[in-house]
Amino acid sequence: MKKIITVSRQFGSGGRSIGKAVAQELGFDYYDSELVERVAKETGFDPEYIADAGEYAPGRSMLSYAFTSGAPHGTAGHAGAADYLWAAQCRVILELAEKGNCVIVGRCADYILRERDDCLNVFVYADKKYRADRIVSLYGVRDKSPEKRLDEKDGKRRINYKYFTGREWGVPQNYHVSLDSGYFGQEETAHIIAALAKK
Amino acid sequence: MKKIITVSRQFGSGGRSIGKAVAQELGFDYYDSELVERVAKETGFDPEYIADAGEYAPGRSMLSYAFTSGAPHGTAGHAGAADYLWAAQCRVILELAEKGNCVIVGRCADYILRERDDCLNVFVYADKKYRADRIVSLYGVRDKSPEKRLDEKDGKRRINYKYFTGREWGVPQNYHVSLDSGYFGQEETAHIIAALAKK
Repeated sequence: MKKIITVSRQFGSGGRSIGKAVAQELGFDYYDSELVERVAKETGFDPEYIADAGEYAPGRSMLSYAFTSGAPHGTAGHAGAADYLWAAQCRVILELAEKGNCVIVGRCADYILRERDDCLNVFVYADKKYRADRIVSLYGVRDKSPEKRLDEKDGKRRINYKYFTGREWGVPQNYHVSLDSGYFGQEETAHIIAALAKK
Repeated sequence: MKKIITVSRQFGSGGRSIGKAVAQELGFDYYDSELVERVAKETGFDPEYIADAGEYAPGRSMLSYAFTSGAPHGTAGHAGAADYLWAAQCRVILELAEKGNCVIVGRCADYILRERDDCLNVFVYADKKYRADRIVSLYGVRDKSPEKRLDEKDGKRRINYKYFTGREWGVPQNYHVSLDSGYFGQEETAHIIAALAKK
């Protein structure tokens, strides 16, 4: 039986709800917003900022949090804030993992916990059509096309993952199993992950 | 219940034996060498050549099979032979799929059968250390280091897949599930695939 399940996911694939369903099925804790609140407490950052910056590439909003004094140029401020947040996030995830029996969605948890041998690292994805339909039905129509929203969100996840881990996001070798949630369906994908965790 | 399982695999991951075990567990036909023999019959190519060229990037050995007359330059001969072999391989795989209840290992079968909705497309991989140890224990020590042998073999599979399918080999989106056979173990990986096929 694995004690920790990390779920990385393409935007719109349902990885977040699948992670919740897995936690429920196994009686595990589920960390997503709670994790954000803990990091907020540790760092003093605004939880809304952490929810965004903890997973996505540093953007302009980061400027207002840039605090590295004596930085030689503008971007160093970004890196300072991002690195500080990263360190806090690592600490919180390592602490939660120590407690065990949990599902952690996103936040490079697969990488942060790579030294442990009681983790099951999962990647959830689906084809673009499935994800586009899903985000429109969940979040409604926006100015930007759903395809563009998918590309932007995943692009940011990719850059963030690469920046902090040096690895490519969504490459199967980073995970123990990768599942197409469009093919298996949301509910079934959760059952498959729960069954794999029990092995 | 899925009728066809395609197994794509990193060299040394055990995907071939796993495919065999899945076929045995499900009572399915297993195609690997039989497929090669059928293609040989159709094309008149030497089975040994097909076993190699059907999956790996066209190499020098192809020159002896180059037969496109009037080709403006040397490489067109390669492409001619490779394309001819590819077409025969597609035909044979589509025929076998029509019969159903089978496991097909390698040979871009995931791509060739992409229009069918009764396929489960699997990718099997493992970390380099696991695969290096495995090929040394299976095939013995060679002049080249096992790591180099892995890179060369997978490099050729990648080029071949890209050439004929236009897609990237080993990218999760091409498959319904990707599994780390080093993490789950050979036997368990086969059980997982068989269970997924039954869904």
